[in-house]
Amino acid sequence: MTERQSPTERTRVRRLPERGAYDRPTIDAILDAMPVAHVGYSIDGQPFVTPTLQWREDDHVYWHGSAASRMLRVIDGAPVCLTVTLIDGMVLARSAFNHSMNYRSVMLLGKAHAISDPAEKEARLRTFVESQFPGRWDMLRPVTAQELKATTVLGMPIDECSAKIRSGSPHDDEADEVLDIWAGVVPIRYEILPPVADQHVQAGRTPPLHATQFRIG
Amino acid sequence: MTERQSPTERTRVRRLPERGAYDRPTIDAILDAMPVAHVGYSIDGQPFVTPTLQWREDDHVYWHGSAASRMLRVIDGAPVCLTVTLIDGMVLARSAFNHSMNYRSVMLLGKAHAISDPAEKEARLRTFVESQFPGRWDMLRPVTAQELKATTVLGMPIDECSAKIRSGSPHDDEADEVLDIWAGVVPIRYEILPPVADQHVQAGRTPPLHATQFRIG
Repeated sequence: MTERQSPTERTRVRRLPERGAYDRPTIDAILDAMPVAHVGYSIDGQPFVTPTLQWREDDHVYWHGSAASRMLRVIDGAPVCLTVTLIDGMVLARSAFNHSMNYRSVMLLGKAHAISDPAEKEARLRTFVESQFPGRWDMLRPVTAQELKATTVLGMPIDECSAKIRSGSPHDDEADEVLDIWAGVVPIRYEILPPVADQHVQAGRTPPLHATQFRIG
Repeated sequence: MTERQSPTERTRVRRLPERGAYDRPTIDAILDAMPVAHVGYSIDGQPFVTPTLQWREDDHVYWHGSAASRMLRVIDGAPVCLTVTLIDGMVLARSAFNHSMNYRSVMLLGKAHAISDPAEKEARLRTFVESQFPGRWDMLRPVTAQELKATTVLGMPIDECSAKIRSGSPHDDEADEVLDIWAGVVPIRYEILPPVADQHVQAGRTPPLHATQFRIG
């Protein structure tokens, strides 16, 4: 496993370079903390950005969807950008100019490849379910060959990538710090509420731990 | 104001069309509920997806950044995709195949244009701050000509767009509904914590209402 990526000209954080990070522990921590990614791809010169669930396994990220999906069909072998963002807070400064947002994000560039071998596909989907909800895969009705066929799984190596992080207080101009204006941070968190069983679950049944212990961030 | 958009071939929701919506009240409600967008654009055939704050004013969305930003320089006049996503929950079904996510998202396609007139730029930035934090703009140290010059504001008409929404319980295969497997939804919310003043705010000072009343979702 590569422990440190060198930024390329395409992933180097140019604006406010002190916010950039390129080490794998930082990048992996963000990917592992937020299952939702925004995947960018182009069709006939028009960019599209689709929200989708992602998961990481060692040096790859994966996402999946219907084999009939337009996004998944055009993306195999094409250049894509997968971005994962955690929103941590709104930053209220003493000037409009210095307002900002606290966040942790990863931008990953590369070419996606579709996984065609059904056994590998099933192994990747198992990791997906298990990474979100440990112990769930073996509780489920087993996946069928038809379902595997109807599902496209895409992978992309964690190779050309960067993290960008802003945290902490506003950075006001020094001359503004004495102004009688409230400034600070409004923190934002992903709140996970108690699981809600569907109508077929027996009343009073305790939800599994992986449903009550699920976290984002 | 156009009350209903017709989906184009590019924005029509093909997969699971019952999740698609094209009416402006639905689209505007999502844009207004989530200030963070993911903006997609291409440089030399490589898609990029950048998280940024967005705001809506009537029939346009806007975003901004440093005039030195690569994203904002290449984007003026180029085709972009702006996607806004609210994460509402994880959907746990009785088969891996029927697991899903509850969400509300908007995908907006078009060409962005940079606002060059300083007065218009300032008016748009005022709306930005006021839409997030009502009453704040007039409390702030006024924006300077230099700051306006250093800020690029981009706008895009709300024209070619669609919303995609999933909510509610898992949709299991009928044959799976009797299985002794817990299924349901793990709801997710954006929790806004009490504001944290920076070190220059007098101890004990009450934060403004716009900081305590800020909400996402």
